[in-house]
Amino acid sequence: MPSISQKAMHMPSSPIRKLVPYAEDAKKRGVHVHHLNIGQPDIKTPEKALRAVREAKIDVLAYSRTEGSEVFREKIANYYQRLDLKVRAKDIVVTTGGSEGLSFALGALLDPNDELIVPEPFYANYSGFAGAHNIKIVPITCSFDTQFSLPSIGEFEKLITPRTKAILICNPSNPTGYVYSKEELTQLAQIALKHDLFILSDEVYREFVYDGAVHYSMLSFDALKEHVVVIDSVSKRYSMCGARIGFVVTQNSELRAAVLKFAQARLSPPTYAQIASEAALDTEAHYFEEVLREYSARRNFLVQALQKIPGVQTAVPKGAFYCIVKLPVKSAEDFAQWLLEHFALDNETVMVAPAAGFYSTKGLGEDEVRIAYVLEIDALKRAVDILEKGLEAYLA
Amino acid sequence: MPSISQKAMHMPSSPIRKLVPYAEDAKKRGVHVHHLNIGQPDIKTPEKALRAVREAKIDVLAYSRTEGSEVFREKIANYYQRLDLKVRAKDIVVTTGGSEGLSFALGALLDPNDELIVPEPFYANYSGFAGAHNIKIVPITCSFDTQFSLPSIGEFEKLITPRTKAILICNPSNPTGYVYSKEELTQLAQIALKHDLFILSDEVYREFVYDGAVHYSMLSFDALKEHVVVIDSVSKRYSMCGARIGFVVTQNSELRAAVLKFAQARLSPPTYAQIASEAALDTEAHYFEEVLREYSARRNFLVQALQKIPGVQTAVPKGAFYCIVKLPVKSAEDFAQWLLEHFALDNETVMVAPAAGFYSTKGLGEDEVRIAYVLEIDALKRAVDILEKGLEAYLA
Repeated sequence: MPSISQKAMHMPSSPIRKLVPYAEDAKKRGVHVHHLNIGQPDIKTPEKALRAVREAKIDVLAYSRTEGSEVFREKIANYYQRLDLKVRAKDIVVTTGGSEGLSFALGALLDPNDELIVPEPFYANYSGFAGAHNIKIVPITCSFDTQFSLPSIGEFEKLITPRTKAILICNPSNPTGYVYSKEELTQLAQIALKHDLFILSDEVYREFVYDGAVHYSMLSFDALKEHVVVIDSVSKRYSMCGARIGFVVTQNSELRAAVLKFAQARLSPPTYAQIASEAALDTEAHYFEEVLREYSARRNFLVQALQKIPGVQTAVPKGAFYCIVKLPVKSAEDFAQWLLEHFALDNETVMVAPAAGFYSTKGLGEDEVRIAYVLEIDALKRAVDILEKGLEAYLA
Repeated sequence: MPSISQKAMHMPSSPIRKLVPYAEDAKKRGVHVHHLNIGQPDIKTPEKALRAVREAKIDVLAYSRTEGSEVFREKIANYYQRLDLKVRAKDIVVTTGGSEGLSFALGALLDPNDELIVPEPFYANYSGFAGAHNIKIVPITCSFDTQFSLPSIGEFEKLITPRTKAILICNPSNPTGYVYSKEELTQLAQIALKHDLFILSDEVYREFVYDGAVHYSMLSFDALKEHVVVIDSVSKRYSMCGARIGFVVTQNSELRAAVLKFAQARLSPPTYAQIASEAALDTEAHYFEEVLREYSARRNFLVQALQKIPGVQTAVPKGAFYCIVKLPVKSAEDFAQWLLEHFALDNETVMVAPAAGFYSTKGLGEDEVRIAYVLEIDALKRAVDILEKGLEAYLA
């Protein structure tokens, strides 16, 4: 029997998936599982987007334009311009989710064995995309104790080698909820210019910032036009993760042409999803105001409730809808599995994501979990109760 | 300014796209362009598929299951079972088009610098996917004179090296329309077993075979269970290229797990497209009978009409909806460009795909074009007229 590729053998499975069979078993036993483990929002998709698909007049569901239609990209550019970011339609390549966008951008920038510096903990699927391109991820560790702020220039420079091609950040961050300050981004910009590196900035959670904080986009640095690629997506913004529409945005025309080569090979992004996404761009401001109010309330509740549990520490998220929680256990993975296998409160339990899977450095995050606050406050309240009682029982 | 990856620099652009600016210019001059250059069928998408999307009750357009839902994959398995192929739901991974399926399968099987043998001429985007994975395509040349039948075992064995991991075929073939015989596939099976190679079989045109010919799937070889991966798609079968839904089918569980790692990183295939595709699987047999009758009539007309043009030779396609046509010119690319730039008959012209782009060996196919018979017979008749008059004028 012929063997599969070395690269496939070494590609990590999603850290969240390891626990899925245990969750399925729990459900088979009739236990209700509160899912705090995934970033699937419960917020309704804007009706405009859904209606546009219902009302689309289609005879032949044909290929669409590889980089997205002119009209769609014009509307996307307008969205950025409303945020005071200088993006033109021609700077945009529409992709099948931010996922495909990131994968194309990595392939366009890095060759096998090239190095990509990524602040850890980071979105676990970055490892998958890097693995698929034989790219080496070089983690730079952010600390729970500083709420995951960006390490200093000096720490970055220790990691830069002749093979370093790019730095990848996620802002606001999945999994930490950290929102980079203007100063931190300026520091990154300096590193990029000094060492001639690309900066990949995953900004799919751009709108999700709390306490009146302002999100700074890497697109706002004029001096960095040739160095910056932004990865974006409609998934979280309009609660339409299932559409699978994202964008690669860059003013570097050589890079854009390279991304387009990857895009041409796969012909076009999904047509229905583009119809929905184009309509979603007309979503009124009050939709976001309500969504933000809701997430803000959830975050406030969650952080306060978790901090009341003895031995539990929380990095207070400033954005996105995740937080990293430190538990008084040796192995958060063992605890998470135990919650699914052996614990229930009135026939309910919770599923959380062990955070070790978000670190690239072995041994880090062993006592941490990532919690996604994608449930209504009543369910969150219940979930935190279960977590507290579960922790008591686990430690007893 | 940092530089893009070597791999992106060397990835070929689609050979069809080179001519697109000339076609756009022609349209700007008010010239109607008959598109014989792309495989976008004009056949209507089954109403069932379109209706399923219109009537879908969706509140939150959520992520779907990475490998496609159990129900969807069961229906796909039933489709294969109706063709007497032993495929189980668990053998299937749903992908974003056959394109993504092929890309995942290549990544799961071949490491950088591994070799993939592909009969040429081949679907040009294979080069893109191979380039994205740093895989080396080793072409085995099929001859216009034998209508592109498969070369002998001996010819294959000359090309096999320790780095050869797989053979990729397209059956029925884009761009040649060739349908492999049972004997040829048995020969391929022998090579795969003897040299322990994977066979990737792109069978997206399975239903499109003419003159009562029978399509044999690589899935029908019981002895080859561990060696075969079939790439499939709803795009051509149900004229829904814009959906972007395909499948990877293999009974090799290790390989399937590897494909699933790539799939997990990108989360899920598009939700709307899966709704449409699941419904499309219920399309009645008479839809295909009509479609087949139509394509068969188009092919018959096209081949006869082309053969009447002095100096033009056609490889008679047995399947798919393409044929390779040899023209009495030195450079078919120059002629194709000239048709768009300098020729029109009553303000109409045609766009064809220069075939050199479908060959990996430099210098081959220079006097050939690929014609896609995806237009109604009246339009085809007109297009062939233009081609004939254009050729006369070009050669004058």
